Amino acid sequence: MLKGPFLSKNFIGSIENFDESKIVMLGMPMDSTVSNRPGSRFAPQSIRLESIGIETYSPTFEKDMEDTLFYDAGDLDLPFGNPKRQLDIIKENVDFIYKKGKKVLGIGGEHLVTYGEIEAVCDKFENLAVIQFDAHTDLRDEYLGESLTHSGVMKKIADIIGFENIAQIGIRSGEKREFDMMKKYNTLLKKPEELNRFKDKNIFLTIDLDVLDSSLMRGTGTPEAGGFTYNELLLWLYELRNFNIIGADIVELAPDIDPGKVSTAAACTLIREVLMLL
Amino acid sequence: MLKGPFLSKNFIGSIENFDESKIVMLGMPMDSTVSNRPGSRFAPQSIRLESIGIETYSPTFEKDMEDTLFYDAGDLDLPFGNPKRQLDIIKENVDFIYKKGKKVLGIGGEHLVTYGEIEAVCDKFENLAVIQFDAHTDLRDEYLGESLTHSGVMKKIADIIGFENIAQIGIRSGEKREFDMMKKYNTLLKKPEELNRFKDKNIFLTIDLDVLDSSLMRGTGTPEAGGFTYNELLLWLYELRNFNIIGADIVELAPDIDPGKVSTAAACTLIREVLMLL
Amino acid sequence: MLKGPFLSKNFIGSIENFDESKIVMLGMPMDSTVSNRPGSRFAPQSIRLESIGIETYSPTFEKDMEDTLFYDAGDLDLPFGNPKRQLDIIKENVDFIYKKGKKVLGIGGEHLVTYGEIEAVCDKFENLAVIQFDAHTDLRDEYLGESLTHSGVMKKIADIIGFENIAQIGIRSGEKREFDMMKKYNTLLKKPEELNRFKDKNIFLTIDLDVLDSSLMRGTGTPEAGGFTYNELLLWLYELRNFNIIGADIVELAPDIDPGKVSTAAACTLIREVLMLL
Amino acid sequence: MLKGPFLSKNFIGSIENFDESKIVMLGMPMDSTVSNRPGSRFAPQSIRLESIGIETYSPTFEKDMEDTLFYDAGDLDLPFGNPKRQLDIIKENVDFIYKKGKKVLGIGGEHLVTYGEIEAVCDKFENLAVIQFDAHTDLRDEYLGESLTHSGVMKKIADIIGFENIAQIGIRSGEKREFDMMKKYNTLLKKPEELNRFKDKNIFLTIDLDVLDSSLMRGTGTPEAGGFTYNELLLWLYELRNFNIIGADIVELAPDIDPGKVSTAAACTLIREVLMLL
Amino acid sequence: MLKGPFLSKNFIGSIENFDESKIVMLGMPMDSTVSNRPGSRFAPQSIRLESIGIETYSPTFEKDMEDTLFYDAGDLDLPFGNPKRQLDIIKENVDFIYKKGKKVLGIGGEHLVTYGEIEAVCDKFENLAVIQFDAHTDLRDEYLGESLTHSGVMKKIADIIGFENIAQIGIRSGEKREFDMMKKYNTLLKKPEELNRFKDKNIFLTIDLDVLDSSLMRGTGTPEAGGFTYNELLLWLYELRNFNIIGADIVELAPDIDPGKVSTAAACTLIREVLMLL
Amino acid sequence: MLKGPFLSKNFIGSIENFDESKIVMLGMPMDSTVSNRPGSRFAPQSIRLESIGIETYSPTFEKDMEDTLFYDAGDLDLPFGNPKRQLDIIKENVDFIYKKGKKVLGIGGEHLVTYGEIEAVCDKFENLAVIQFDAHTDLRDEYLGESLTHSGVMKKIADIIGFENIAQIGIRSGEKREFDMMKKYNTLLKKPEELNRFKDKNIFLTIDLDVLDSSLMRGTGTPEAGGFTYNELLLWLYELRNFNIIGADIVELAPDIDPGKVSTAAACTLIREVLMLL
Repeated sequence: MLKGPFLSKNFIGSIENFDESKIVMLGMPMDSTVSNRPGSRFAPQSIRLESIGIETYSPTFEKDMEDTLFYDAGDLDLPFGNPKRQLDIIKENVDFIYKKGKKVLGIGGEHLVTYGEIEAVCDKFENLAVIQFDAHTDLRDEYLGESLTHSGVMKKIADIIGFENIAQIGIRSGEKREFDMMKKYNTLLKKPEELNRFKDKNIFLTIDLDVLDSSLMRGTGTPEAGGFTYNELLLWLYELRNFNIIGADIVELAPDIDPGKVSTAAACTLIREVLMLL
Repeated sequence: MLKGPFLSKNFIGSIENFDESKIVMLGMPMDSTVSNRPGSRFAPQSIRLESIGIETYSPTFEKDMEDTLFYDAGDLDLPFGNPKRQLDIIKENVDFIYKKGKKVLGIGGEHLVTYGEIEAVCDKFENLAVIQFDAHTDLRDEYLGESLTHSGVMKKIADIIGFENIAQIGIRSGEKREFDMMKKYNTLLKKPEELNRFKDKNIFLTIDLDVLDSSLMRGTGTPEAGGFTYNELLLWLYELRNFNIIGADIVELAPDIDPGKVSTAAACTLIREVLMLL
Repeated sequence: MLKGPFLSKNFIGSIENFDESKIVMLGMPMDSTVSNRPGSRFAPQSIRLESIGIETYSPTFEKDMEDTLFYDAGDLDLPFGNPKRQLDIIKENVDFIYKKGKKVLGIGGEHLVTYGEIEAVCDKFENLAVIQFDAHTDLRDEYLGESLTHSGVMKKIADIIGFENIAQIGIRSGEKREFDMMKKYNTLLKKPEELNRFKDKNIFLTIDLDVLDSSLMRGTGTPEAGGFTYNELLLWLYELRNFNIIGADIVELAPDIDPGKVSTAAACTLIREVLMLL
Repeated sequence: MLKGPFLSKNFIGSIENFDESKIVMLGMPMDSTVSNRPGSRFAPQSIRLESIGIETYSPTFEKDMEDTLFYDAGDLDLPFGNPKRQLDIIKENVDFIYKKGKKVLGIGGEHLVTYGEIEAVCDKFENLAVIQFDAHTDLRDEYLGESLTHSGVMKKIADIIGFENIAQIGIRSGEKREFDMMKKYNTLLKKPEELNRFKDKNIFLTIDLDVLDSSLMRGTGTPEAGGFTYNELLLWLYELRNFNIIGADIVELAPDIDPGKVSTAAACTLIREVLMLL
Repeated sequence: MLKGPFLSKNFIGSIENFDESKIVMLGMPMDSTVSNRPGSRFAPQSIRLESIGIETYSPTFEKDMEDTLFYDAGDLDLPFGNPKRQLDIIKENVDFIYKKGKKVLGIGGEHLVTYGEIEAVCDKFENLAVIQFDAHTDLRDEYLGESLTHSGVMKKIADIIGFENIAQIGIRSGEKREFDMMKKYNTLLKKPEELNRFKDKNIFLTIDLDVLDSSLMRGTGTPEAGGFTYNELLLWLYELRNFNIIGADIVELAPDIDPGKVSTAAACTLIREVLMLL
Repeated sequence: MLKGPFLSKNFIGSIENFDESKIVMLGMPMDSTVSNRPGSRFAPQSIRLESIGIETYSPTFEKDMEDTLFYDAGDLDLPFGNPKRQLDIIKENVDFIYKKGKKVLGIGGEHLVTYGEIEAVCDKFENLAVIQFDAHTDLRDEYLGESLTHSGVMKKIADIIGFENIAQIGIRSGEKREFDMMKKYNTLLKKPEELNRFKDKNIFLTIDLDVLDSSLMRGTGTPEAGGFTYNELLLWLYELRNFNIIGADIVELAPDIDPGKVSTAAACTLIREVLMLL
């Protein structure tokens, strides 16, 4: 073959081989149910390209991505216009990953992809909990009559695993009914220490990037001011360093909204830190 | 009430009253089946705002928009994630417009909205023909298994009114199978004079803005180089000045892709010219 | 009429009727005296469109916008090139609002609009004070020989109501003479508690959005680093929750400078919170 | 002094000395009466910077800019908010240039600057004519009650030199009354040959860049589709190569609207060609 | 392995295997000697992603990309800051491709990459000629004292193969000395028919995308108005359909300058047409 | 000469005369060794233009720029493609400045310019130390085999002045080897008080703008989340107010990546504060 040297087509630090990997990074460019700005379909590709600009070493965790044995599997090709079929394809592939004894790191796509992932893992782990970082409650029953909507993903997950297995962090937007629901079920956490009650659970971590303040995270469909700084989010993640994280996803990056790709760059270093947790 | 003066919230030149209108401009922000860049959902709102920058007088047709008695009805609120329901809402509203003896000027949204409109008008007019300006053939049977797709809208319309009632203009992109179909049914027109065979028909005019060269029309999901200049498109429209146009739409503007809103401004003057034809 | 459902053309949560309203949101797209980047003329329209992406519920005040009975009156049509006439039109309309027993929520446009508003309200309220959130002192006598300038709006207001009735918050840019003036009259507040001395006043609240750090508020003519985070600004506003706010405005958003409209989105949620104070 | 080499701070090809120059390039960043997108105030600075990317040699005229002896005088500092005073400053400086026996090449700013220039030159040349390249008629009497408006600049000039001394080229937008006026006075030229009737005049050339098709000229306040290609405009200018051009301006570039600065680059090469005519 | 379906990471239509290919697409992200806007280093990656939006079928040549047996080899990893070493890496890899009996389709990067390619092929083909589409002559001896510069690439190639083996098309910018050189050696072609004198040569085709008018090709370091429309360029290429093209490259796309990626999309369809010629 | 008034072509507050100055601001648009996003070559020009929007008075230091007697010398014209020669030109000019008894304020360009500056000053000052604000360690020995690289500039400086004379602040990205080196030599400072050990040194201050959080500093080649806020950086600088600063530079602004020029505006006020320290 050609001599090269060549730039990798994968996320930086990915190993070349699925079989030897412990974590599978899987692009899920679903982008069908957002009512505000679309564009999360381009997130996995954009993240992959931008990853060339980051280092593989994490000063926070004092570890290198190359030690995590992750494999970048590329992006699913999803049929737009049919959310149900898109979720089925996601579920099927995630299912396969766990059957092979690996963990998934999903790259959205819109937040509804988490529902497909949870459908795949919910019967594989006892004591499953979902920890959600997000600006929005995502607890709606429906939106304009549709129950499959990114603004209702946590409600659908709660229907599977129960509200007692859900932690919500960074929430600052929602309907009154949704905030009432959070109070009723006490799902909203205010301080990293409160995570302790999930210590014995098998945790799926879902990070909607709009949990970050919109000054940093401009490249997302519904940016919200008043969110976490990057370092505040890191503190929460650091708290999870000895938890049993069985899978994770990072969703709702809409890279083209942010011309300088700063949001994408932040997503890349965040992915590095999440890999350290898996 | 307040003294003002106030800026209008409608498209420039709109009359204030639905009942007195002859033409109803209706925003159809459907944006569900595009696989490439989304964003046509924001087109009607963007067009309305930019219209303040154009003149109501058309030097081409030497007429003023204010003489056309059109009414800007605003934008439908469509449930994302369910193309079928979106089309039904479009159909229902267009149906009502024709029952009131008025014509529709649809503002997309993606090209699939035309299917909803044709479903509404096809039983109201004999001898119905559809004249399509477009860069793409839009003759696919399905895309990743979905038959409701903007790249198949003309195929679905042909299934209703027959290929002999379809004219395709400006096409420069498609699969080999699609180009073969155009040849078989002789739907592709090369010169404005060829329009004459549709002179006796009741014509629904559908303009996918990507028929324009991508140097001008940057704000669309799938821009294609090699298209018409604006003046070339005007020549085609001018040829239609004595035809019986019973309805029209202008689709696939994705305004935010084009930061300076030049595509939107061009869409606005084009809407003015189409109003002259209706 | 048409069946719909339709998207509203007003700011989210607006009631349909002027007469039943208690607060009138009025767009004042004045944009004539800025020497740096213009563009605030497009703010009210942009805010109206973006408002669709926010929730009507405020978790901070635990109230819903829909309970505030506000009416979005649309945007004044102002003659560019003549600042004096623009201010007169603003004054006249604001005058009418207060004569009808309602309060104004002005949406700039440039900061000079506040002068027009204060001219309208200054003879209707005893004990009037103006609380200004801003990066700039706005205390110039003139700019290149012109006394009507957005960088001198607070000086002109002080000439009417006296410096003792002015509070300035967030100021971090100005000439030495202006900072000396702030010291002399002790107008600069450093901590929310200092607001207490205005507790018995009738307060007009004016928020120049550049008080926010330029990392968040990029869409403004003269962005300044070193400003408040969104949450810091919220803390100040929360302190005002039991004050007697008789009117307010939010000015100097220049939406097109910020391609992703994040500044506009932040302005929208801020408007929601200010509505809670009125 | 420092050794360098240094980049020039002037437009490429400018000589270093006012006194030895034959042509004075003068920035006129007036930007006060446009109702649509502002931003032409930044044009002269932007043009100066971008000029580094063009060549000084014109293949069209087979001459080099360096032979034209032009001097880039920099940009006037104009008081925003007072159009009258801005025009007076322009008039005064242009007056001085002609008294020194030189010609002006004005760089707008908005089109109203031409009025200031013509006020300065109208009593210095007999037989003065103005040749206008523009998308818009600019023949309004007033706009929202203001007579000093960029959309009425040619009407004000016609009031001075008479309609018989005005040629309008490229016009494609205006009110019916304005088009009627053009017909009445026969000011609209369709072919370069028609310029011959101005051959014996002293010609001031004014180019509103929106005469170019909006596919190329995106960076202008009111871009219009259907205009000249760059080469078509060059043909018109080439026709003028043996005319007596006594001054010129190039106006209405709004550089920041066009992120890639392509409009600015085109303005730079156009300035080179106009220098060849002076 | 995972079930998928997956999106390809290669240029659309690429086969999976180097050995079976006849044409090798090779990314050469060199971006070191441009003095104006840089950014061509991101072109190959951007082209690869955008290619998903085009069709593999060419209506011009009535052939499908999938029949050309091309293989997308990915992008070379080049050491910035050292043009000489970058060219050596390019030469080495291109050399290998031809030794395997395949042709190269180089994707720049800046125009200097062509020099590396020609160094590799010049001793493999007798009767070698280079046909250059470009806005700029690229005939400089040096730029600020550096002889390795993108504005001198054709001069360096002429030094190898002689001016009689060079055709230059679309040139509209250069120094007087360069235009004199073109005249002296008669390298500038005006009409497609003039290509006939190269019919018996082994032709390497190099397309600097700025040959296209800057209205379409905004995403390039030195955009020039007055260039070819896309269809005009196609006509030239069509003329070459029976020539012996032994290699080609497409250079100087700077994708991030053009936010909507219209330039990149045009480059993708152009690549498709060039593949038909190889 | 012309009457004016004119806008200055220099950075705001610059005196007109090199000889009377104490500080020389020198543009160093080197942009050759960055592997990620280029564009810092445009920083000095962009900073100069944007400076018109800031005040000359610093509320932090309660001084005015006009009292610092600085002279804006303009930008060096550097030969792209040859880093060695570019550094020599920088060195030569900085050398001259210090021989005239003045201090330099370098405006990058990429971070490698600091190496050229230190080469010029290292033999003029005893007890020289370099204080670096940066997101990246910049301690690499080479990058793809090149030792002249912006990611190794501090290593090359350490080779001259020793690691004991280096302070690194804000670092959050680098290879494991680089972080180990920082630990070994204890170069990383965490709190402003730790600066005290440099109190007796002659300090050259180098600020890579990416030390600021990427929410604010989007306009840089390798933006990093998790950095200082603007006010945090001001605190560090304020700590240095009684130190002996003998020169400084501000590097790695890439202005065009940030469409609204907010990064450039922040760089301008930062330059004002650094001038107060010199």
